[in-house]
Amino acid sequence: MSLTYKAAGVDIGRAEDALSRVRERIAKTRRPEVIGGVGQFGGLFASPGPDTVLVATTDGVGTKLELARLLDRHEVVGEDLVNHCVNDALAMGAEPLFFLDYFATSRIDPPVFARVVGAMADACRRAGAALLGGETAEMPGMYAPGTYDLAGFLVGAVARGRVLGPEGVREGDVLIGLPSSGLHTNGYSLAREILARAAGSEARTLSDLLGESRRDLADQTIGEALLATHRSYLEDFRLLRDAARVHSIAHITGGGWEGNLPRALPDGLAAAVDRGAWSAPRVFTLLAELGRIAEPECFDTWNMGVGLVFVLERADREAALAAVPDAIELGRVVPHTDGRRVRFG
Amino acid sequence: MSLTYKAAGVDIGRAEDALSRVRERIAKTRRPEVIGGVGQFGGLFASPGPDTVLVATTDGVGTKLELARLLDRHEVVGEDLVNHCVNDALAMGAEPLFFLDYFATSRIDPPVFARVVGAMADACRRAGAALLGGETAEMPGMYAPGTYDLAGFLVGAVARGRVLGPEGVREGDVLIGLPSSGLHTNGYSLAREILARAAGSEARTLSDLLGESRRDLADQTIGEALLATHRSYLEDFRLLRDAARVHSIAHITGGGWEGNLPRALPDGLAAAVDRGAWSAPRVFTLLAELGRIAEPECFDTWNMGVGLVFVLERADREAALAAVPDAIELGRVVPHTDGRRVRFG
Repeated sequence: MSLTYKAAGVDIGRAEDALSRVRERIAKTRRPEVIGGVGQFGGLFASPGPDTVLVATTDGVGTKLELARLLDRHEVVGEDLVNHCVNDALAMGAEPLFFLDYFATSRIDPPVFARVVGAMADACRRAGAALLGGETAEMPGMYAPGTYDLAGFLVGAVARGRVLGPEGVREGDVLIGLPSSGLHTNGYSLAREILARAAGSEARTLSDLLGESRRDLADQTIGEALLATHRSYLEDFRLLRDAARVHSIAHITGGGWEGNLPRALPDGLAAAVDRGAWSAPRVFTLLAELGRIAEPECFDTWNMGVGLVFVLERADREAALAAVPDAIELGRVVPHTDGRRVRFG
Repeated sequence: MSLTYKAAGVDIGRAEDALSRVRERIAKTRRPEVIGGVGQFGGLFASPGPDTVLVATTDGVGTKLELARLLDRHEVVGEDLVNHCVNDALAMGAEPLFFLDYFATSRIDPPVFARVVGAMADACRRAGAALLGGETAEMPGMYAPGTYDLAGFLVGAVARGRVLGPEGVREGDVLIGLPSSGLHTNGYSLAREILARAAGSEARTLSDLLGESRRDLADQTIGEALLATHRSYLEDFRLLRDAARVHSIAHITGGGWEGNLPRALPDGLAAAVDRGAWSAPRVFTLLAELGRIAEPECFDTWNMGVGLVFVLERADREAALAAVPDAIELGRVVPHTDGRRVRFG
């Protein structure tokens, strides 16, 4: 028998069909700096001036993908991917310029692709990022049926003198947190393992447990609570940057508090965080209870209700809290002696 | 029983171990424009001036990953990923600035990770691209044991007046090709399907077939021929750009000749290619014979021995051929009437 590429499982027409469903939404992300159209070997974007620093970041959404697939909520992970990258860029002080995505699967399902990439395009438009390109890879046998992986890549820009980072931080600086919408895109492997075991011990299916509406989650299901979209902090960042002297920012992602907050602090300084400044949302405490997870492990894995932490000039504390209504005063920058650099008190 | 993130399959220490093995090789890719060190939320790179256009591209290496794993040749796909991106950027006229990678697997194997990402770093250094960041995702259960996926993102730069593209191409322009080193990173699903069927029909294992040394492959094995590294055309691009008025470039990747050469041509023009100008390397004809693949299907899937095609000013033909010793004169740009835009004669 004679073979074709299509018979071997790769159908370029299917990829084109998928892309045609989102072309208009991608076109709406266009910015004046974008040069030329689609179909080029690379996306073209007029460079900002030499007094500007480019900030490049790449992220995935981890095993939240599996929950999104199970609960047929593909839009969530598309938006998550963009917002995660946007938050990483703004943590360096940058505004988004352009975004590219990688979508890999065994067999492209054009409607699912359009839901994921369409949501990415919409999130790019809201963030002001041009969706400049992407790679759609059909790899027969590499992924289990119906599963896909995503990677995002974002380039932003910040004026040379306004790059954020640990070097600007001093003892006595204030820590201001912003609430997360849930787990964002981190710690889903632990959450899924907890729920799979909990379902098993009650002789229920995981889907059944995920679909149960719960009073302690404000009548949401666990699945809905877990699939809250990764919050974009772009608007809050703009407001706070204008209202206060922001020195550095930590995006609380993989590795939780200890894995991320120290990245916004110079050697020799630590964060003293008042654990009473906020309450961890019920989705976190519920997972901790179901899995009997010790609190330090929770804070090393999940954001526990605070997705972004600003380190700012002490004198600007009130201005910052006034600028962003849901901002939380978390604590202070203190000398680091030894051990952990995030000290909860 | 109490759970931890590690017990749920995600071990941040393992990711750090993996990264520590390649840190020095990554450091060697540093360029003067890179600002700050590692561990930031985004990589920083001083922007080129406003007379410059940024070129952004993203690629994967497809199911060549499966062959690299089967034959324990992980370095190849790391280098492939960088070279694929570099070639896409130079097809727009750009020199590389910086690169980021996404590495996703169920459970990080630090030695394998170091081989893949170390090879990426070395390829970046050779291309002059700073390896500015990366995401290493451990996603339990998402990938089959031992498998991983890769995505690469590259940003390059080209002076505003020197962007390449179809608009500069005219009837009568010359097509100059450069040899590929093999399949590069496209058409592996078809190649693998052909070989799996061939092995099955001879009651052999795929590994056995791949490991057979063949006289018609210059005593290489089929596996070795298939795992030739995706050639970087960066040096050839520089030589040709300096020697001739290059109008556009096509990188022959997924979709083969008809899928890529027209991307370098304006509407209304087509490519007349002299099929006798070169011989397809044996690896392609061998695959075609084993799978009984019709020649048009081969040219729609594989590069058939030519990985990059330059479209250049007719008067510069001889200078171009002199500048790059292995360059092949393929044909001419002609009017397009109807049907396919690549006409073999």
